[in-house]
Amino acid sequence: MKLSTRNRLPGTVTEVVKGEAAAKVTLQVGDNHVVALITRESADELGLEPGKQVTALVKATDVMVMTDEGVA
Amino acid sequence: MKLSTRNRLPGTVTEVVKGEAAAKVTLQVGDNHVVALITRESADELGLEPGKQVTALVKATDVMVMTDEGVA
Amino acid sequence: MKLSTRNRLPGTVTEVVKGEAAAKVTLQVGDNHVVALITRESADELGLEPGKQVTALVKATDVMVMTDEGVA
Amino acid sequence: MKLSTRNRLPGTVTEVVKGEAAAKVTLQVGDNHVVALITRESADELGLEPGKQVTALVKATDVMVMTDEGVA
Amino acid sequence: MKLSTRNRLPGTVTEVVKGEAAAKVTLQVGDNHVVALITRESADELGLEPGKQVTALVKATDVMVMTDEGVA
Amino acid sequence: MKLSTRNRLPGTVTEVVKGEAAAKVTLQVGDNHVVALITRESADELGLEPGKQVTALVKATDVMVMTDEGVA
Repeated sequence: MKLSTRNRLPGTVTEVVKGEAAAKVTLQVGDNHVVALITRESADELGLEPGKQVTALVKATDVMVMTDEGVA
Repeated sequence: MKLSTRNRLPGTVTEVVKGEAAAKVTLQVGDNHVVALITRESADELGLEPGKQVTALVKATDVMVMTDEGVA
Repeated sequence: MKLSTRNRLPGTVTEVVKGEAAAKVTLQVGDNHVVALITRESADELGLEPGKQVTALVKATDVMVMTDEGVA
Repeated sequence: MKLSTRNRLPGTVTEVVKGEAAAKVTLQVGDNHVVALITRESADELGLEPGKQVTALVKATDVMVMTDEGVA
Repeated sequence: MKLSTRNRLPGTVTEVVKGEAAAKVTLQVGDNHVVALITRESADELGLEPGKQVTALVKATDVMVMTDEGVA
Repeated sequence: MKLSTRNRLPGTVTEVVKGEAAAKVTLQVGDNHVVALITRESADELGLEPGKQVTALVKATDVMVMTDEGVA
């Protein structure tokens, strides 16, 4: 199976907060935290819970770039 | 300045490919590659080029989660 | 009225789950299920409920492509 | 600091509705209402409440265009 | 016709830049510029050109919020 | 492998238009056309060309809903 999705960030689930329709999932990816807002249905079906190994996927059109032009 | 955007991944630009309207920017973020498809206008204005330090930003609603349920 | 949105999938609402801020709406589109996570406000204003005929809209930049390269 | 994000709409928060995982934030931007569905975590950390001055940000790939071809 | 899309910003096209696959469309919306990256196909079909009256549409899940906490 | 992505629409590639940075891919999905704007890199790597069997993936947060309230 191959995906057009360019960005795959392997990590570990650290927190899952479930609402009625939505769920917020926090991952540790290397030195960074990554937060996903997905359907609660997805969170349930994937059995997401702290400690689980997962991969965060992000489409290239959804990535923004920020530069720091501030004075040192 | 504070942003609602949950995900900030600091990295280094490794490649910029420019079309007429769009530009593809590749970053090295820790051990991962991150690809952004942005407007060419943005790439020009931010002076993106290999070696530049930047931060990739991703909204939480744009992050998907994949699990590997394969047998070891 | 004409929309730049390329993708229009006519279908029927099969389920609506409402949270405080978000709502999950499931549609039957041909042989496929399509799930939308929208604001609860939208779901209320459009009067979404099972049996209602609607059209799912998706911007072209939000569609990913997956191929199956597995052995038959 | 410079952002690749093309669209910045300064406005005032008029309403915040919080669920468990998600929050809906309504802004007045000039003559228009703008609604954002963000994580509740973001809404809490930014201290969003009616009257607060903020800027709505939207990536260019997330903007659709509609024309009215109706007869006058 | 009713759309779940919360955000509708009426404006005027000020520039269209077309590539092979993508097109960048700039609008004047009140005091703000709004930039859309859409398919070239859409730009052609909608006959987008400077001076045309259009409406920019943005899904609530695609709006981010920024606050300025800097010292005056 | 399991994905949080709710929407999977199996179809056939009918057209691929490649620019420098972006590519537009058209699929036939049941009775509907589905258009994806992805990076050219993805289109090349996946070997997308007319006739290829693929699956379109769409995150639930990227689906909008439209109703027709017109008079019959």
